[in-house]
Amino acid sequence: MSGKTEDSKWFREVNPGFWPGQAFSLEIDEVLHHQHSKYQDVLVFKSKTYGNVLVLDNCIQCTERDECAYQEMLGLLPLMAHPNPKKVLIIGGGDGGVLREVVKHPQVEQAVLCEIDQDVIDVSKKYLPGMAQGFSSPKAVINVGDGFEYLKNNQKQFDVIITDSSDPEGPAESLFQESFYSLLKSALKPPHGIICCQGESIWLHLNLIKKMVTFARDIFPTVSYAFASTPTYPSGTIGFLICSLEKDKKLNEPIDEKLIDQIDTRFYTADIHRAAFALPAFVRKALTFN
Amino acid sequence: MSGKTEDSKWFREVNPGFWPGQAFSLEIDEVLHHQHSKYQDVLVFKSKTYGNVLVLDNCIQCTERDECAYQEMLGLLPLMAHPNPKKVLIIGGGDGGVLREVVKHPQVEQAVLCEIDQDVIDVSKKYLPGMAQGFSSPKAVINVGDGFEYLKNNQKQFDVIITDSSDPEGPAESLFQESFYSLLKSALKPPHGIICCQGESIWLHLNLIKKMVTFARDIFPTVSYAFASTPTYPSGTIGFLICSLEKDKKLNEPIDEKLIDQIDTRFYTADIHRAAFALPAFVRKALTFN
Repeated sequence: MSGKTEDSKWFREVNPGFWPGQAFSLEIDEVLHHQHSKYQDVLVFKSKTYGNVLVLDNCIQCTERDECAYQEMLGLLPLMAHPNPKKVLIIGGGDGGVLREVVKHPQVEQAVLCEIDQDVIDVSKKYLPGMAQGFSSPKAVINVGDGFEYLKNNQKQFDVIITDSSDPEGPAESLFQESFYSLLKSALKPPHGIICCQGESIWLHLNLIKKMVTFARDIFPTVSYAFASTPTYPSGTIGFLICSLEKDKKLNEPIDEKLIDQIDTRFYTADIHRAAFALPAFVRKALTFN
Repeated sequence: MSGKTEDSKWFREVNPGFWPGQAFSLEIDEVLHHQHSKYQDVLVFKSKTYGNVLVLDNCIQCTERDECAYQEMLGLLPLMAHPNPKKVLIIGGGDGGVLREVVKHPQVEQAVLCEIDQDVIDVSKKYLPGMAQGFSSPKAVINVGDGFEYLKNNQKQFDVIITDSSDPEGPAESLFQESFYSLLKSALKPPHGIICCQGESIWLHLNLIKKMVTFARDIFPTVSYAFASTPTYPSGTIGFLICSLEKDKKLNEPIDEKLIDQIDTRFYTADIHRAAFALPAFVRKALTFN
């Protein structure tokens, strides 16, 4: 495991560049899988108290115990703000968790998942079956390849595009840049198209978030930011950068509360949707949201 | 440091009974203080990236970098829901952080702090001056002693009572029990009295929270639960159990938004107040809040 565990019984998540001075550890019951794929280090272990855990390049991607928060929010925040999300694209998300949420939505007819690393898909099907169940939906279309290329070849196609990426180091680095957001916009179907991207932590990455919000405002008429509680991500929260082709779109309001009642969730509710957009004073100030 | 650091450079927070299978670590720049007080182990260190850190019985109590979230929410949630909080009692809170928030409120005339451990007060004045500034307010009255005794001797006195306790192991254990909540009620001034207690983590302690909410409902006409992002507490969130003497009191609504504008905050806003009461689906179900 090349120094990734502090001893044989614990996985320790350290990243001196991206979250210096802090570390989170999970106790290992059993290592289930470890490989270097074409793109990244892929580790799955059974933890003592968080179920199975997927780790890419030494960063925890999800645990069975708390994955509901991230998957449901990243998937349902944009879908529930769109009046009729028939066709959805997920960039990344090879673990299948967001796909599982997207195909739940009764209006969704097709959900395309564009993941660069086939090994992440295979590993998730084997060790995270609860998350990977989305792969077997008749609505799902799986495309193994580069998100940039896929977007270039599919203009004005999608009602909602979700970017479920790892951190901006390694294969996901380009997904945090302005050129990627321009491509996302051009692949959205007017006039209601919405994107939702993994947006890092308000406590750890406020400068990066500010930069992303700033260039997103040059590209999209409406830009908003939300966050939610996610215990096994650094700082215990993750943010979501959400943008709409519509001017003055109220992204913080679910469009149809009755629709939510039809969907089985563990974390997401209409109130949680609204609450996610309430930003702490220091974040509101930094991002100049009023 | 008796095994509390994984090596000389890191403090590692482990608690196999209360949050098994997980651990959070902060990198140490310098140990500033370490003693066994009459009640508990008291450690203060300067961390690499979170400022000074207070640790009681191996549990992180606060860091200078993120303390605003906890102190402002525990202090301002009940104050901003009360129509005229003139007299406030804080049980625990020896670091002074909640006291600092309470004395900011323009309607507060007197804030009594009842802390059992004089050493915590002294250490905080020395190493956490930004938090301890509340001690020098002319509104502050400091009582070193047992919270139970103080409550018994001060019936129907307080508009708001805040319990800022460590976890229910060690000196704070009795603060999580039904008899304590009955005493809190009898020390509140009718008809608007409100209490707000540290309420542990929805991700880690849902059974304990359920138990507390259940007995609180036998004692108070209105019981509510809120939570907020707190990166250096286990699971990255902490909850707040809030109860009112008034029937059908809307605790999730700040009473006067203009008052909030007069108070300098880093975390708390009127929207954050409302959002804190939006509970994830699995919590709402467990606590049968609608």
